[in-house]
This record gives sequence, C-alpha cells and structure tokens, in this order.
Amino acid sequence: MRLTYEQILDKLGETVGWERRGDGISRVFKFRDFKEAVAFVNKAAEVAEEMDHHPDILITYNTVQLSVFTHSEGGLTDKDFALAKKVNQIV
Amino acid sequence: MRLTYEQILDKLGETVGWERRGDGISRVFKFRDFKEAVAFVNKAAEVAEEMDHHPDILITYNTVQLSVFTHSEGGLTDKDFALAKKVNQIV
Repeated sequence: MRLTYEQILDKLGETVGWERRGDGISRVFKFRDFKEAVAFVNKAAEVAEEMDHHPDILITYNTVQLSVFTHSEGGLTDKDFALAKKVNQIV
Repeated sequence: MRLTYEQILDKLGETVGWERRGDGISRVFKFRDFKEAVAFVNKAAEVAEEMDHHPDILITYNTVQLSVFTHSEGGLTDKDFALAKKVNQIV
C-alpha cells in the first residue's frame, strides 16, 4: 500500500540520510575508494535479494547512490523504508 | 590526450554497443535478473581497477549502464575506448 505524504515525512524522519528525490527516496554513501564502494554495493545487493526489493544503484568512483521506489504500487511503501533502514545497518 | 571528434567517431565504429552520451560514451547491458547484473558489475569493476579507470555504473534491476569519460583531460581519450573494449570482452 502506498504511503501518504504525511507517512512519508514521518518515516523519512526516522531513516537517517535518506531524502525524497524524484518519485522515490535516495541516499548517497561515500567511501574511501572505488573498491570499497563496490564492496558496499555487494552487501546492499544481498539485502535487496533477501527482501526481493531492488534499489537503483549508481556508483561514481567512491560514492554510491541508492534510490528506491515501489514500481508495482506507483509510489513509496513500507518496503522502501524497510530496505533503506536495513541498508543503513550495513554501512 | 583528448581525441578529436573524428577520432571518436572512428573508435565508436569499432566499439560494439557503445554510443556517445553526454560528454562520455556509454553502453547499456541487459541481464536475466538483478543477481546477474551485479555479477557483471563485479567483473567490470575488476577491469576498472586493473586499468585504474573507473566508469560510472548504474544498476537498474537487470540492466547495467556503464559511462566513461576522462575527467583529467576533460574529454574522451584512448583510455575510455580501451576500457569499453575490455568490458565488451567480459559480457
């Protein structure tokens, strides 16, 4: 179920580092170098597979931007915030 | 050294699947699923580390877009096309 605007604001408040961007939510993670960035992407990919929910992932040398959105619902859902929080735990 | 417009066109002609996009060159690779896309990213990342030349990498579920550009030269160089060709060999 799609979250309402108020629910999204509430949940953003408890999801460190993530912000509204376009239709979804996203966070930029910064690492020492490309190698560390790719290592993080592999950990995030594991989380994504476990949750069967796949963020867009942009690697630009030592930064990784994750963006998440529930395509099947055409909006943001609990699943998006669950993924965001789980990813925050592996940084 | 930055390549000229004519050199870029020549090299694009011999670099399957890559096209001019923005300032750089890029190619979209499509896979069966997210897992295979991530596996490819790991192989491409190895090539990037070996060549010390790092493309931007965008993973969107089962597709991966690589984009490359030589920031230090402010343009496209032989290094960009060398990376593109090497990545083409690992698909």
